[in-house]
Amino acid sequence: MYEELSPETIESVLRQLGDRVLTTPSVRFYGDRVNEFARDVELFIKLELFQYTGTFKARGAMNVVRNLDAGQLARGITAVSAGNHAIAAAYCARIFGTSARIFMPKTAKQIRVERARSYGAELVFCETQTEMFERAEAAQRDEGRTFVHPFEGPFTVQGTATVGLEIASQIPQLDLMVLPIGGGGLCSGVASYLKQVNPGIRIVGVEPEGADIMALSFDTGGPVVKEEVRTIADSLAPPKSEPYTYGVCRKFVDQLVQVSDAEMIQGMRILLDDMKLMVEPAAAATTAALLSGRLGDLAGQRVGVIACGANIDFENFTDLLRNS
Amino acid sequence: MYEELSPETIESVLRQLGDRVLTTPSVRFYGDRVNEFARDVELFIKLELFQYTGTFKARGAMNVVRNLDAGQLARGITAVSAGNHAIAAAYCARIFGTSARIFMPKTAKQIRVERARSYGAELVFCETQTEMFERAEAAQRDEGRTFVHPFEGPFTVQGTATVGLEIASQIPQLDLMVLPIGGGGLCSGVASYLKQVNPGIRIVGVEPEGADIMALSFDTGGPVVKEEVRTIADSLAPPKSEPYTYGVCRKFVDQLVQVSDAEMIQGMRILLDDMKLMVEPAAAATTAALLSGRLGDLAGQRVGVIACGANIDFENFTDLLRNS
Repeated sequence: MYEELSPETIESVLRQLGDRVLTTPSVRFYGDRVNEFARDVELFIKLELFQYTGTFKARGAMNVVRNLDAGQLARGITAVSAGNHAIAAAYCARIFGTSARIFMPKTAKQIRVERARSYGAELVFCETQTEMFERAEAAQRDEGRTFVHPFEGPFTVQGTATVGLEIASQIPQLDLMVLPIGGGGLCSGVASYLKQVNPGIRIVGVEPEGADIMALSFDTGGPVVKEEVRTIADSLAPPKSEPYTYGVCRKFVDQLVQVSDAEMIQGMRILLDDMKLMVEPAAAATTAALLSGRLGDLAGQRVGVIACGANIDFENFTDLLRNS
Repeated sequence: MYEELSPETIESVLRQLGDRVLTTPSVRFYGDRVNEFARDVELFIKLELFQYTGTFKARGAMNVVRNLDAGQLARGITAVSAGNHAIAAAYCARIFGTSARIFMPKTAKQIRVERARSYGAELVFCETQTEMFERAEAAQRDEGRTFVHPFEGPFTVQGTATVGLEIASQIPQLDLMVLPIGGGGLCSGVASYLKQVNPGIRIVGVEPEGADIMALSFDTGGPVVKEEVRTIADSLAPPKSEPYTYGVCRKFVDQLVQVSDAEMIQGMRILLDDMKLMVEPAAAATTAALLSGRLGDLAGQRVGVIACGANIDFENFTDLLRNS
């Protein structure tokens, strides 16, 4: 079961990705602010925000595009995204010399639009989610483009599992790894790798209160659609979950917790004060979970969190912190 | 000559420091903004701001305190600092269970004062530089405290040389390393290590236009006193240079360049936009040098810069960027 996610396979995937993705560092996470919440905890943070494109999304998309054949590469790719995945898909298309047509909401943040465009992608702005998906389907049907999903499918999850491989080699013997969950693309990959090489580890997935899609899926026993999603962490707010990532998360994630917008903003503030990092709300979700106390008593434990995304600009960041 | 800075000695120093200092990562430094200035450059940044105490100063001070005997440890240490060195000295005293009396200017930034105090140091606020140094001398004379200098002396430079050791192992075969110079504590150590293991490397030291003490020293052929110092990079603005660090810089640094306050602010902005790092002006000096064009044509080269200090708060940071 999940042979395609075996540690040996993931080691091979990482070698194949080569220098098209970066090895990102893990460092001690300490400071006056976070120490208040994590006394006697040996805390580490994986700085995946230094990845090419600013987020882990490059790993999954790269592994999808790497597996395309010459005909598929000639016909190009397509994607649907509010930002981080758009940037990643555009970057991968550039690396492999193929074309990308990406459907984005009109409300996408300017910094993300500019980054995706800087890699040469064709961006199409849509009024609604429905329009985005319909037009992406048309691009597949009419032009033979390959749809690169933001979080679903074995190739994507193999890509994110390489984050787990790096964490295991950088921070041995973790007691607890805390991971953000939106669609579960990152969480499934990292959890599967860590749990296989270190079965005693506890894996907690963190989702926004207003976008608790994975919790609903766990309760339901399968993927769900959530009509209304409400969170500042737009990177953790897919409209639905999908069977493959759901299944991997279900198998390897021990517990889900939810954090509020206010808690994520508090996490952003602490990452700024203690680590001097300006991250987007989704990237502060795991820090927020730590502050919330919902992870239980962690004294004496080695705990890992992750800063997974950086695509926020100074003005947006300042507004979020000022208005909190 | 400088046998105490031989690569073998520095490797031994790093082992002795053990887990009292952190190994900090080096990562690729790229992004839309910095790429404008560093086209065709393979650029890396050493993230020494993740060091304990927020700056490299912990390494030098730790190596000084580590070399004290039991009697000296019983009598305690003293230091003079506007901030980063105060925090480092306080931290080292805490680690070695000795007391620290630290003389700071009344104008020291609040974030730095709080950090130094959080490690249990006794802080004494003074009106003038002269008063700070006179009272530190009295603490040595009357109480037998050991003066821990912010940048002078072989033990301090051995400590900073461990930064060079890490850079050499993390980023092999650099063509150019760019280092900030104030008193030269960091620059001397890193330059000496890198030049010894990679004699073909070019080392450039960067100082603020309004605090070009090392350039004056190079011109003079020895340490100098500079009456008036004017820069936003208070961490790079000692009132004078000292013979040992001067000598090591003279031997191992190929070139000095100066950057303006505006260029450092531009460097801070690029570190924020591209790397999501909120750094103090001194920590943006090497990035500023890159933008200035004063490093010459770097096309095809592997270049390293360093973010060496993080002790700035959000309000100060925002003010600097807004007023630029």
